[in-house]
Amino acid sequence: MSQSLIDHRGPQFAQLLKEVLAGLQRVFQTSTGEVILNPGSGTGAWESCVVNTLSPGDRVLGCVNGHFSARFCDTASAHGIEVQRLEVPYGAAVSADLVETQLRADTQRQLKAVLVLHNETSTGVVTDIAAIRRALDRADHPALLLVDVVSSLASMDFRFDEWRVDVALTGPQKGLMLPPGMAILAVSPKALKANQSARCARYFWDWAPVFERNARGEFPYTPATALIFGLKESLAMLEEEGLTNVFSRHARLAEACRRAVKAAGLQLLTRRSEEFSNTLTAVCMPEGFDSDAYLAHAERTLELPLGPGLGEVKGKIFRIGHLGSLNELELLGALAGVEMTLTSFGVPIPLGAGLAAAETYLLQTAPGGLGHGR
Amino acid sequence: MSQSLIDHRGPQFAQLLKEVLAGLQRVFQTSTGEVILNPGSGTGAWESCVVNTLSPGDRVLGCVNGHFSARFCDTASAHGIEVQRLEVPYGAAVSADLVETQLRADTQRQLKAVLVLHNETSTGVVTDIAAIRRALDRADHPALLLVDVVSSLASMDFRFDEWRVDVALTGPQKGLMLPPGMAILAVSPKALKANQSARCARYFWDWAPVFERNARGEFPYTPATALIFGLKESLAMLEEEGLTNVFSRHARLAEACRRAVKAAGLQLLTRRSEEFSNTLTAVCMPEGFDSDAYLAHAERTLELPLGPGLGEVKGKIFRIGHLGSLNELELLGALAGVEMTLTSFGVPIPLGAGLAAAETYLLQTAPGGLGHGR
Amino acid sequence: MSQSLIDHRGPQFAQLLKEVLAGLQRVFQTSTGEVILNPGSGTGAWESCVVNTLSPGDRVLGCVNGHFSARFCDTASAHGIEVQRLEVPYGAAVSADLVETQLRADTQRQLKAVLVLHNETSTGVVTDIAAIRRALDRADHPALLLVDVVSSLASMDFRFDEWRVDVALTGPQKGLMLPPGMAILAVSPKALKANQSARCARYFWDWAPVFERNARGEFPYTPATALIFGLKESLAMLEEEGLTNVFSRHARLAEACRRAVKAAGLQLLTRRSEEFSNTLTAVCMPEGFDSDAYLAHAERTLELPLGPGLGEVKGKIFRIGHLGSLNELELLGALAGVEMTLTSFGVPIPLGAGLAAAETYLLQTAPGGLGHGR
Amino acid sequence: MSQSLIDHRGPQFAQLLKEVLAGLQRVFQTSTGEVILNPGSGTGAWESCVVNTLSPGDRVLGCVNGHFSARFCDTASAHGIEVQRLEVPYGAAVSADLVETQLRADTQRQLKAVLVLHNETSTGVVTDIAAIRRALDRADHPALLLVDVVSSLASMDFRFDEWRVDVALTGPQKGLMLPPGMAILAVSPKALKANQSARCARYFWDWAPVFERNARGEFPYTPATALIFGLKESLAMLEEEGLTNVFSRHARLAEACRRAVKAAGLQLLTRRSEEFSNTLTAVCMPEGFDSDAYLAHAERTLELPLGPGLGEVKGKIFRIGHLGSLNELELLGALAGVEMTLTSFGVPIPLGAGLAAAETYLLQTAPGGLGHGR
Repeated sequence: MSQSLIDHRGPQFAQLLKEVLAGLQRVFQTSTGEVILNPGSGTGAWESCVVNTLSPGDRVLGCVNGHFSARFCDTASAHGIEVQRLEVPYGAAVSADLVETQLRADTQRQLKAVLVLHNETSTGVVTDIAAIRRALDRADHPALLLVDVVSSLASMDFRFDEWRVDVALTGPQKGLMLPPGMAILAVSPKALKANQSARCARYFWDWAPVFERNARGEFPYTPATALIFGLKESLAMLEEEGLTNVFSRHARLAEACRRAVKAAGLQLLTRRSEEFSNTLTAVCMPEGFDSDAYLAHAERTLELPLGPGLGEVKGKIFRIGHLGSLNELELLGALAGVEMTLTSFGVPIPLGAGLAAAETYLLQTAPGGLGHGR
Repeated sequence: MSQSLIDHRGPQFAQLLKEVLAGLQRVFQTSTGEVILNPGSGTGAWESCVVNTLSPGDRVLGCVNGHFSARFCDTASAHGIEVQRLEVPYGAAVSADLVETQLRADTQRQLKAVLVLHNETSTGVVTDIAAIRRALDRADHPALLLVDVVSSLASMDFRFDEWRVDVALTGPQKGLMLPPGMAILAVSPKALKANQSARCARYFWDWAPVFERNARGEFPYTPATALIFGLKESLAMLEEEGLTNVFSRHARLAEACRRAVKAAGLQLLTRRSEEFSNTLTAVCMPEGFDSDAYLAHAERTLELPLGPGLGEVKGKIFRIGHLGSLNELELLGALAGVEMTLTSFGVPIPLGAGLAAAETYLLQTAPGGLGHGR
Repeated sequence: MSQSLIDHRGPQFAQLLKEVLAGLQRVFQTSTGEVILNPGSGTGAWESCVVNTLSPGDRVLGCVNGHFSARFCDTASAHGIEVQRLEVPYGAAVSADLVETQLRADTQRQLKAVLVLHNETSTGVVTDIAAIRRALDRADHPALLLVDVVSSLASMDFRFDEWRVDVALTGPQKGLMLPPGMAILAVSPKALKANQSARCARYFWDWAPVFERNARGEFPYTPATALIFGLKESLAMLEEEGLTNVFSRHARLAEACRRAVKAAGLQLLTRRSEEFSNTLTAVCMPEGFDSDAYLAHAERTLELPLGPGLGEVKGKIFRIGHLGSLNELELLGALAGVEMTLTSFGVPIPLGAGLAAAETYLLQTAPGGLGHGR
Repeated sequence: MSQSLIDHRGPQFAQLLKEVLAGLQRVFQTSTGEVILNPGSGTGAWESCVVNTLSPGDRVLGCVNGHFSARFCDTASAHGIEVQRLEVPYGAAVSADLVETQLRADTQRQLKAVLVLHNETSTGVVTDIAAIRRALDRADHPALLLVDVVSSLASMDFRFDEWRVDVALTGPQKGLMLPPGMAILAVSPKALKANQSARCARYFWDWAPVFERNARGEFPYTPATALIFGLKESLAMLEEEGLTNVFSRHARLAEACRRAVKAAGLQLLTRRSEEFSNTLTAVCMPEGFDSDAYLAHAERTLELPLGPGLGEVKGKIFRIGHLGSLNELELLGALAGVEMTLTSFGVPIPLGAGLAAAETYLLQTAPGGLGHGR
């Protein structure tokens, strides 16, 4: 029998769904927010967020500090939202002070929402969402706080309730360590209220039937069942390690990566240490070299999967990802690959220097001291 | 390294994508249509179809002969399209004559599209899309022909080019035998042209960037990579068996199922034999019994996965799916389960009679005669 | 790094091994017996049993009631053991009375062991091991009781401790629901003592180093790690269902199968109902038909996996297996396949009659009555 | 239906077996040798080799240069074979000259076989089997040449036919990249002839029924089907890369590993460069440190899987495996792990120096020059 025809409607699926939604709430660090799962992607999650909370003609403050934050704003524009863009240079975080200034200037309270990325995946920059929340509070502004946590959730500390975020959105393929194919959102009571008056056209993304059917363990559409099964496993892995340990592990590996980059004589795109991302590191390609050509070389010679520069920094940077289930040896193997491929690409760097710096830092910070246990 | 960060951007993925798109074209039986893959679902495929070809305020002819065709029309309505509904009783196919009448009546050529389901999954009824095309032709009407093939593609003969369909849409979880999580569309040149002037708001579903990036082996969003890998396998399986053989197998198993139902003294929802679906069979619950209660009983006692009645026929029918990789023994096992659970639910049917009828038919029609080879 | 070089020597593997050995003890229903795992097969398990407990020139009583019991005896003969064969017709169980007679006749106590199969896989006959034990006791004979439980363990009630079995041997591919590739033995203290004086040449199969290394969570040879991981899963499945429920399920499905066979007008090889196997049913091929030719036909036309007649009953019977994770619908599907392929092979049987008999019995015995829950 | 009951007896399995046996012949580089597959292990392969070619009381020349070669000889001893041991220090290869001397001294031609390891897994030493063959030829001695290729086949060049080996034996878990659980042997016509007169007791391991049943696509015992399916895949991988390329890759990675070890100021156990193994490297633990304690530390702190010293070198060496599907980045990650764990264990080594040496060598020898393609 075609299991697929109905296997997302049985009592076992209902139980699974309940567990997965509760587990995701713990990862979002929320008890008041509701979680929504859609087949989709991060782009789909932007669309779900925008069409469910806003109406054509609405005005929002869009914080842009990289390629993906620009596209989040583009999503809103595509749905008839007027986006007042607060542009920040690539490699910098969004300044809470500037956000506050713009909110204070909005004396008519026309801005319905602030759109911001917790972690700009294109530049490896983390924005202080707690500070953005304080900016909203200080300006006493009622705008919704809509936060992309695609490359931060389950890797860096993100607190939905404490920071009073209204919508946080992500996919399964980063910190949740699954294949892509889903939009995952946490939604505050305030966002749910906004949903009722939001007039953007929507059918597939509409939250209302999802909540109604989820309550019965069902979906109004055919869910991405394989990923929902996968979520059960990845949530169990995160809970076994402990969220705090997961965050520490990412912080430690990220710092090791940055030390390796600096010891190799290369420059980080991000300048301020408090804005360093713990999930990926953007490295400036030395003068005279094109990073896209370098990436093709690294892929061809060592199958090394690095991320390209996007938008304004296309050809100028490359990105090293260090998130998910990564361990020390995998990071060091990848850093060795960067050393080797940069060398064979013609960039003069000292072989082994970056690795030594990373090893030294990892040894100094080994959990439990030198003879660190797991 | 986080493979997932970029593994959908390498040269191997580009090659895979190319093969999968070409394979799907063969399954859609099209050489002129382009294929689009989105993370999503059948509902998402409706939305993709509607927002990419129509504009708010447009009028369309929506053919409604069951629960899913009604929801296809709802999708259009949600996006501000005015849907002129051509309602047909549950259990019947859409009459091409009625379509022709309505199109002829539209002397102003205001109807921009005809929305129709090849196979109504809620009732097990197939509509003759070739006849609908002839109706459009006879009425000399320029409307787009938008066809849902969710529960027919790769199971029943569907000819995108020959029937000059403009959009055909489906998901991976039926005839393509994969887990759900994707919207799959074939798009004609005429639909592509309509896309350029369609003004429905869209970002995630927008076709234009997909075609642009697909040409480079990429996607404008993170694709559902696991399903794209899966498609390669399921396309290979379909090609190995041969589409014609796949269609014959479904037709043969479906007829065996119907004979079993009739031999058990039960009634089919679909009355006209030319409208029988080869992918699922809707069975009328005998007077005095509620089909929802029966399904819960069948699930609880034998984990038998049957489909419920939806919409108007809720509680009145149940549905037996027989599509995908199903073979004779699995069908007979499922039919035995139906016999047993109906009996234990209190419906008086003769045990074994339906099975004997199905077996007899399957033996009579065995490929290669009585000693049928595979 | 080549994980395989040493991954069976770490602390995680030691913990896994401990759990698996304890779980298998529960399945053997023993607290005094030790469990030994070897890469191998049932044939390998015979060899392990023989070379570890006996010496060339020893005499044993070999109970032969089918193909596999004959081969168990052949294993002993190949190692220089003199086998006094107690032959019983194919289709019958081993008579405890005859065993007692032979043991009593052995006034010199020359017989070192009794070799017997709990379930003769070639004929579908179960022998009452408790009765064999009583025969040994009544004869006051010190022979070891060596029992093949290949096709009974974890499907039919087998009590290592209560029946004072000395060696019980099996593989992973039947009741334990795994791929083949292992010899699994439970060994009593008495067998361990015999091991010390047994002089059959052995190195790979030698128990002594296994016990020594197992105590440290290791093996003296490279173990079949994948199967050991698999055992953890299958033991968890058995414990979740409960051994008693597993036995009941097998008994119920087996009786349904036998009723189907009889209702089809066919004859069982086993005549006495107390000797019916609950894991497989041997069916006599009607006069004038060759069962090997029928099996080839069934495999070719419906990919129906039936077992052939072996040894004396080659060409005369076929075997239907019903063990492991089988459920009602899978059994009924298989029985439908038998009905269809017998018919297309030319054997005149009434289609559906066997299925109706099986369905009727399954309904009558449904756990929890007619509306049986799981 | 219990597939496992018979799925190793169908026509599909017969075809699979034929392909796998032919593929293994290519890997053994033989057209005259026959391949035998048994559930088992390397230890089982020794037993299969010994009991099928020799008789109790026979005398053989056993070349011992490490832990595993000693155990190969132990296997023979356990079966009543008299083993004349040619002992060579741990870390050295077997000298063909010494073999020749001993063979010449055997004027009565009492030595029935020479037992030797191509690659001593406990010390990382390769013996020149072609030279051993020449020693046999020069001494004009008829002894069988029985060679353990457990840790060399499919990683280092081994030529069954050219070197006129009589039995070569291995398992699936090294160069064939599968889980353990099998004994794999290639057998020359001369060994087959010896088999007919060999009188060691055997049943499970007996070659005669294997050849008889393999000819019909069957086995006399239940085969390890999962591994046979796996072999099809690993053979395809080896053929895609090409055996010559596989050997070159292993040689290159092994040399990189050795250079890293030396650059770290550590000493290799193997002294002569022509005796270096390309599948694993044995490293001497610096004075004052116990390698077993170090391995426990490396496992605990970084889950680094290193091999221990065995036999005479217990506590004195550790082994780095570099065989199978290993690539540059995995090797470098592992070497980084060795640097870090040695440091945290208190061994004074310069961090990064070994890695730099390995990187430099890998860059110099990159296939296709600096910008090396795959």
